[in-house]
Amino acid sequence: MSAADDLILGLTKVVGLPGLTEAAGAPLGEADIAALVEEAARFCTEKLAPGWQQADRHGARYANGTVTCPPHYTQLMQDWIASGWQGVAAPEAHGGQGLPHALWVAVTELASAADMAFFLGPVLTAGAIDLLVGHATPDQAARWLPNLVSGAWTGTMCLTEPQAGSDLSALRCRAEPVGEGRYALHGQKIYITWGEHDLTDNILHLVLARLPGAPEGSRGISLFAAPKLLPDGQRNALRCGGIEHKLGIHASPTCIMLFDGAEAELIGEPGRGLNAMFAMMNAARLAVGVQGVGQGARALELAETYAAQRSQNGRVIADHPDVARMLMEMRATTLAGRLLALEAAAALDRHHLLGEEAGAIRLALLTPIVKAWCTDRGVENASLGIQVHGGMGFVEDSGAAQVFRDARIAPIYEGTNGIQAIDLLVRKLARDEGAAMRGLLAEVAASDPRLAPATARLSAATDLMLGLQARDADAAQSLAAAYLDACGWLLGGWMLARAAAASPDHASLARFYRTRLLPRAEARCLEIEGAAQLLVPEVH
Amino acid sequence: MSAADDLILGLTKVVGLPGLTEAAGAPLGEADIAALVEEAARFCTEKLAPGWQQADRHGARYANGTVTCPPHYTQLMQDWIASGWQGVAAPEAHGGQGLPHALWVAVTELASAADMAFFLGPVLTAGAIDLLVGHATPDQAARWLPNLVSGAWTGTMCLTEPQAGSDLSALRCRAEPVGEGRYALHGQKIYITWGEHDLTDNILHLVLARLPGAPEGSRGISLFAAPKLLPDGQRNALRCGGIEHKLGIHASPTCIMLFDGAEAELIGEPGRGLNAMFAMMNAARLAVGVQGVGQGARALELAETYAAQRSQNGRVIADHPDVARMLMEMRATTLAGRLLALEAAAALDRHHLLGEEAGAIRLALLTPIVKAWCTDRGVENASLGIQVHGGMGFVEDSGAAQVFRDARIAPIYEGTNGIQAIDLLVRKLARDEGAAMRGLLAEVAASDPRLAPATARLSAATDLMLGLQARDADAAQSLAAAYLDACGWLLGGWMLARAAAASPDHASLARFYRTRLLPRAEARCLEIEGAAQLLVPEVH
Repeated sequence: MSAADDLILGLTKVVGLPGLTEAAGAPLGEADIAALVEEAARFCTEKLAPGWQQADRHGARYANGTVTCPPHYTQLMQDWIASGWQGVAAPEAHGGQGLPHALWVAVTELASAADMAFFLGPVLTAGAIDLLVGHATPDQAARWLPNLVSGAWTGTMCLTEPQAGSDLSALRCRAEPVGEGRYALHGQKIYITWGEHDLTDNILHLVLARLPGAPEGSRGISLFAAPKLLPDGQRNALRCGGIEHKLGIHASPTCIMLFDGAEAELIGEPGRGLNAMFAMMNAARLAVGVQGVGQGARALELAETYAAQRSQNGRVIADHPDVARMLMEMRATTLAGRLLALEAAAALDRHHLLGEEAGAIRLALLTPIVKAWCTDRGVENASLGIQVHGGMGFVEDSGAAQVFRDARIAPIYEGTNGIQAIDLLVRKLARDEGAAMRGLLAEVAASDPRLAPATARLSAATDLMLGLQARDADAAQSLAAAYLDACGWLLGGWMLARAAAASPDHASLARFYRTRLLPRAEARCLEIEGAAQLLVPEVH
Repeated sequence: MSAADDLILGLTKVVGLPGLTEAAGAPLGEADIAALVEEAARFCTEKLAPGWQQADRHGARYANGTVTCPPHYTQLMQDWIASGWQGVAAPEAHGGQGLPHALWVAVTELASAADMAFFLGPVLTAGAIDLLVGHATPDQAARWLPNLVSGAWTGTMCLTEPQAGSDLSALRCRAEPVGEGRYALHGQKIYITWGEHDLTDNILHLVLARLPGAPEGSRGISLFAAPKLLPDGQRNALRCGGIEHKLGIHASPTCIMLFDGAEAELIGEPGRGLNAMFAMMNAARLAVGVQGVGQGARALELAETYAAQRSQNGRVIADHPDVARMLMEMRATTLAGRLLALEAAAALDRHHLLGEEAGAIRLALLTPIVKAWCTDRGVENASLGIQVHGGMGFVEDSGAAQVFRDARIAPIYEGTNGIQAIDLLVRKLARDEGAAMRGLLAEVAASDPRLAPATARLSAATDLMLGLQARDADAAQSLAAAYLDACGWLLGGWMLARAAAASPDHASLARFYRTRLLPRAEARCLEIEGAAQLLVPEVH
C-alpha cells in the first residue's frame, strides 16, 4: 500500500476521523478524507517530488543580505499558494478551511517526503498561523493572518541565539518601546529556517525578545512580530546576515537574522512570550515527528524501487532474505510512526474540535514520543535505505544519501530528542504521577493480548522512572531517552495491531513488528531496571 | 584516556602482544609497543588530522581521465612514505618491518580517525601487498612489492562491475593471452577506491577477470596485475572514466576504471582469483571494521570537546544527564570495538607468527562481527556525535556532519554488513556446527560471571540459528543480522570486562556497558527466539 493509502486507512479506520468530525458537526466521510489525501498526494508527486534532488544540488544561496532559492521554487511556491493547502487546518474566519489538524499532518508527511527543504517554509508558516490565531489581537489577525493562511507570505520563528539554544531563558534580543504600541528590535537570531528567501512578497518574523527592565530568565521574554516589508513597502530594519552550510536540507535557507531597530509589534502579554510559544509547540513538534516519518517513507520508496530492479545471484535483491528483512523493518516502523502521529493529531482535534480535555492530555503525552521516536526512526530508515542500495546508496545520484542527510536534522530542531525525553519524564509523567501514561498503557494492553507482557514491563519501568525522578532527577534524566524509546517501540506495536485489525493487509507487518521489533522495548525496560537497581545504593 | 592510550592498554594488557611476540622470537615489550603507537598517533595528529575538513571541501576532482586530489595531499603522501608506516606489518624480505598485524590495526584506527579519505589509499595498498605476498611469483614480488611496501606506489583492488557487486561470480571483465605469459585486459570496473590519483608515480591495479574459455561463475575468475605505467614508462591501456559524487569520503577518488587491452600479468593460478582475494579478505574486512571504530573515535573527540565548552542552563552540557549518557555510550562502544578489533588482529598474529591454527579459526569467526558491528557502531556514534552538538552538529563547520557522511561507507564496502551476517551464519557457524562459537562463548562466560546470563542466552540463540539454517536457509538468513548484532553486543561486553580487569580506569565504563548496552544483545536473542518459534509451523 502507498503512503497515501495508509494515511487514508489510518485517518478513516484507525484513529476514527469520520466519527470525530461528525461529533464536531462538520462530518467528513471516508470518501471525503480519501479524496483530500489523494489530492495532496497528487500535488506532492506532480509538483514537489520531481525537483527534490535538483533543489538539493542548487541549494539556497546567500549574497549581500539576499537569499536565492533554487530557480524552480519560484513556480512551486505559486503552485503551493494556488493549491490552498497552507490553510487546510486554519480557521475559516481567517481564510482557512477549518479542517481537522490530522489532515494537515497527512499533508505534512506527504510533502516532507516529496521535498522536505521546500516544505519547511509552509511548516514554519503554519506555526506562525497557530501562534497568531491564539495570541494576536483582532486587528493584528486581520492584517496578517489572511496573507499567511493563503501562503502569500511566509512566517518564521526567531527563537535561538548563539548563547541560547535549548536554554531559551538565556536570550538577549531586546525590544525598545518607540511609542504607539510599537517597538524597535535589536539583536541577533540564528538557525532561522526560511528567515530570508525570494519566493514571496513578504515574510512575517515572530521574535522572542526582552522588554526594558524585564526580569532575567524565561519570565522576561515577550513575543513580537516584525515584517520584512513595512505596510508602506519600505524594508524593515532587519536583514539576513548569512546562511549555514549544512549537512542536508540544502535548499532550505537556515539564516542568521540581524535586527537593527526593526519595527515590531507585541503579540500577547509582555513576559508571556514563551507561554505563547509553548501553546503551539505540540503542533510544531508533531510536525517534526511527521517529517521523520516522511523521510522514512521516501527512503523506503527509493529502496523498494531499487531492490525490485537490482538482481544479484539470480534473483532480485528484494527477495534476498536480509534485504527483505531491511525492507520489512522500514515498512513496519514507517507505518507505526505514521499512525502514531495520526493518533496524536486526532487527540489534538478531539481537544480543538470537541473541547475534550482528555484529547489535550493525550496529545501532550504523545508529542515528545512522536517527535523523538519518529525522527530517530527516520534517520535509521534513511540509513537502512542506503544499505539496501549497497554501493549505489553512497552515491548521491540514487537519492538515498540525500534522505540520510536531510533526515538528520529532525532529531535536533524543535527541541532535541534529549529535550523531548526530559519533557516526557518531567512534564508529562511526573506532573500527574503517571496517570495519563497508565491510562494509555491500559488501552494498549486491552487492544491486543499479545502486547500485554511488553506493556506490563513498560508499566513497571514507568514506576521506576517516577520513583527515580523523585529521588535523583539527574539519574532519572540519564535514563529518559531509554524510557522514551521503550514507549515508542511499544506504541508502534499498538498502532500496527490496530492497523492489522482495520485491514488484513497489515497482519504480516504487525506480526513482523511484534516478533522482531517489540523486543527493543523490552531491552530498554531491562536497561532501566538494571540502572535503577545499580542506583539504589548510591541514592540512599 | 586517549585513543592511543587505550590502544596501548589493549595491545599490552588485554590481547597480550608482548607475550605473543616473545613466543614468536621477536619480542616487543610494553615500552616498544607504547613508543610505536605514540609515534603513529603523533603522525596522525600532526600530519593527517589538520587538513581533514579542507580535504573534504576540495574533494577529488576528475577531468579527462585524470584525478586531482586536494593540494595538501601531495606533501602528505610524501610524509606518509617517509614515515615508513606503510610497511609496518609487511615482510622484511620485501622491505617491511615484519611487525605484528595488530600494530597495523592500531595505525589504521588512528589514521582513519584523522583523515579516512586519505588513508584509504594506504589501506588499499596494504591489501595489495597482502595479496602479492601470498600469490606473486618471486620475480613479480621483486618487481612490485618494494614499491608498494615503501608507499612509493599505491595499489587497488578492481573487483566490482556494474552487474557484479555482492555477486562477483557475475563478472565479465576478460583477459586475452598475448604471449610470453602476458595478457590484455578488457572491461569496466566500478567503485575502485584510489583507482586514479596524482600522488604517486605509479599505481598497481589488481584485477579480477576471466580467461578465454573459463567456466561461468566464480571458478572461472582469475587475478591479474596491471600497472598504470609500464616498465618503459609508457601509459598502460587503462584509464579512469570518471569518479563518483558521493555522500562522504569526498577526497578519496572512487573511480570507474576502463581497461582497453591493458597489459597485465596473471597472479597465482588460473581460475583461483577469488580464492586469492579471499585469502586477504579477513585482513581487509578487519580494516574496515577498524575504520568504523576510528570514525566513532573522531565523533567522540569532537563531541567531548564541544560538550566541555558549551554551556546551557548554567552548566556545561557534558554535565547534562542525557548528554553525559550519549558520551558514555560513545565511549563504551568505541572502546569495545577498538579492543574487539585488536582481539581479532592478535588472532591473525597468532596464526601468522606462531602458526596456531586456533588463531586462524578465531580470526575467521570474529572478522564478520568486527566488520559489521563496529561499522554499525561507527555510524551510530557519528549520529550521536551530531546530537551532542545540537544545531551546530548539522552545520558542516563543526566536523560532526563530515564524520556522519564519511562513516556511512563502512557498512557497505568490503562486503555489505548483510553479507557479513550471512558469512557468520553460513561459513563460520554452520561449517563446524557452532564449535568455534561455543568455544568463544565459553571463554566469555568464564571471563566475568556477570556476563554468564547473556552468554547463555546467546548460546541458545546459536543453537536456534544452526537448527534453522539446516531446515530453512532463507529464514535463517533473515535473522542473520540480528544474530551478528547479538554477538557484537555480547563480545563488546567481554572486551570491556577485560579492559576493566586490566585497568581500574575502565571499571565505570564496563559497568555502564553491562547495565545499559548489554540488554541489546538480549533483545536480539529474544527476536531470534520469537521468530524461530513462529517459523516452526511454517517449516514442518
